[in-house]
Amino acid sequence: MAAVESYPMKGGDGTFSYVKNSSFQKSASSVVQGLISSAITEKFDVKPSATPTTIRLADLGCSVGPNTFTAMQNVIDTINTKAKSLSCQNPQYQVFFNDHVGNDFNTLFTSIPSDRAYFSAGVPGSFYGRLFPDSSLHFIHSSYSLQWLSKEPKELVNKESEAWNGGRIHYTSAPRGVVDAYARQFSEDMELFLGERAKELVVGGMMVLIMPCIPDETVAHSQVPAGIMFDLLGASLVDMAQAGVISQEQVDSFNLPIYSVSPMEMESLVKKNGRFSIEKMELTDPTSGRKNNEGGSKTSGDGNAIANHLRAGMEGILSKHFGVEKTDELFERFSKKTIEFSDKFKSSLKQGTQLFIVLVKKN
Amino acid sequence: MAAVESYPMKGGDGTFSYVKNSSFQKSASSVVQGLISSAITEKFDVKPSATPTTIRLADLGCSVGPNTFTAMQNVIDTINTKAKSLSCQNPQYQVFFNDHVGNDFNTLFTSIPSDRAYFSAGVPGSFYGRLFPDSSLHFIHSSYSLQWLSKEPKELVNKESEAWNGGRIHYTSAPRGVVDAYARQFSEDMELFLGERAKELVVGGMMVLIMPCIPDETVAHSQVPAGIMFDLLGASLVDMAQAGVISQEQVDSFNLPIYSVSPMEMESLVKKNGRFSIEKMELTDPTSGRKNNEGGSKTSGDGNAIANHLRAGMEGILSKHFGVEKTDELFERFSKKTIEFSDKFKSSLKQGTQLFIVLVKKN
Repeated sequence: MAAVESYPMKGGDGTFSYVKNSSFQKSASSVVQGLISSAITEKFDVKPSATPTTIRLADLGCSVGPNTFTAMQNVIDTINTKAKSLSCQNPQYQVFFNDHVGNDFNTLFTSIPSDRAYFSAGVPGSFYGRLFPDSSLHFIHSSYSLQWLSKEPKELVNKESEAWNGGRIHYTSAPRGVVDAYARQFSEDMELFLGERAKELVVGGMMVLIMPCIPDETVAHSQVPAGIMFDLLGASLVDMAQAGVISQEQVDSFNLPIYSVSPMEMESLVKKNGRFSIEKMELTDPTSGRKNNEGGSKTSGDGNAIANHLRAGMEGILSKHFGVEKTDELFERFSKKTIEFSDKFKSSLKQGTQLFIVLVKKN
Repeated sequence: MAAVESYPMKGGDGTFSYVKNSSFQKSASSVVQGLISSAITEKFDVKPSATPTTIRLADLGCSVGPNTFTAMQNVIDTINTKAKSLSCQNPQYQVFFNDHVGNDFNTLFTSIPSDRAYFSAGVPGSFYGRLFPDSSLHFIHSSYSLQWLSKEPKELVNKESEAWNGGRIHYTSAPRGVVDAYARQFSEDMELFLGERAKELVVGGMMVLIMPCIPDETVAHSQVPAGIMFDLLGASLVDMAQAGVISQEQVDSFNLPIYSVSPMEMESLVKKNGRFSIEKMELTDPTSGRKNNEGGSKTSGDGNAIANHLRAGMEGILSKHFGVEKTDELFERFSKKTIEFSDKFKSSLKQGTQLFIVLVKKN
């Protein structure tokens, strides 16, 4: 396969690190913990066995923690409860934490809970390629990772193309040609992803995917919080180009390789692949698990919190393109814009912007 | 089990890094590549199978590369050759790279050869504890790691004990009580190591261990190159204490947790454990694989090369105890001493200072 771009989350544990700025992802995950538990209880195949068997789990796009540890522990606790109810011995667990080779695995490894009841391993590499031996996994989890495309569609930087995306950094508020180029790339990537996972998962194995989405095809990406963020980030960059801090060409040649799928689109991609049954598909509000003391109420438009959240996830890709020395100014400008447009965030569509999907590998 | 101390090799790829200063380990490994291949050809059980099976390998104490990659590739190539000769399909391979959680896994992961024909994973943790699920490994390799004790024996810093080791940093040239304390610790550690590995290896699985040794009980550790190094390192620290750069108490309270076993001792520990058959045990000269253009001939007493070699492996543990700011002076003094005593190195005993042992897990 073609080379895959890597956009690691910010490592370490400093002010702008992913460790300290992943409360949105945490909130989004906590919403689905219950859904995952139900899916396991209803659909995951725990085979009664005299000798303890080993169940192998993988979290794809795990970043550096701590959300991945919570998610994996929840899966294990639920399988143990199910095993107990079936009078099976508790299985042994081996958890594979996967992310790009550029991920800060050193930080991840030092953060793995010391009281864990599983064997752990880190697996570096893109999930758009093979990562594990044939039929070696029983459960795959991936949360807020599949929105990252393997690369930005080439057409976006071709001035002759219908997908030319000058003056913008994303398909939000862009013409149809741009949106289509993103959708094609997502479709290609998902074909790779599902194809590789079908080889790695045992028959009957479960795959739980959580990703940002749009509720249906009629909703424009500019109506959801992520779309508003990307528009404001793009506007901040355009301002910087106009102020001469960066060049217009730098803005024109940059595009965020991030896509929010619709449920219908996802369903059709899974069916096209043909190796998985869709056991559950549900739209949720990613902010509904947010406690009131966690940085304001539901993406309320707190400029600094939103800027730090975005920065933890995207500083790498932005500083690589625009230069490390431009990053502080960019996020200051962006932070001001989020305050200026806080009403937009408040009135944005949150319900139905998170897709939860449970797949089981067919025979 | 008790907490295990961690002494990671120097990470990154700077002047004093393990990556750039592991030519001794490389030479030592290359001597045994042929021995490993023979052991696999003669004793490793490749089961004929219609569907490709997965063979799981682990390198325990892998550090950051590149020696671990060469060693693992050699194992895989040999198994493939054997499979071919038996008209079996080539197996799939999953290689687990293990080292302490403080090891620089980020450097390791970016160095894994891109043209590898195996799935890779990093496993952080001490090999004196459990690392893998029951019966999940087929081949275990560990080179130049088991000489590291899980901790320094407590008695060494007890002035009332027969094992009090004031004014020295190792059991080389020390009284019997000190040597015995080290031997007891090694014995306890090996009991843990063999016990855990017996659970993780499948029946018939192979374990290859390579470690520094003394040829037999009559040889004093001060006669082998490692012993001479530790004596000179200790003398450099004593000089620094006398010059007031560090305190005498700092020297008295420091001991290198490193032990060179004898073949007879190792044999008796394996037999005591009882879960492995000894398929092969051989003494070799670790420097015999050294090419003439690789930093002088056979530990010839090149002060800088020896100092850099020692520094890559031990800067961590030394700077932790004596302070980072003392490290440069220490290694300068040590380097001068190795030149001063280069005749000692030249006349030291090399033949028989490397133990190569092949174990197979019993039924």
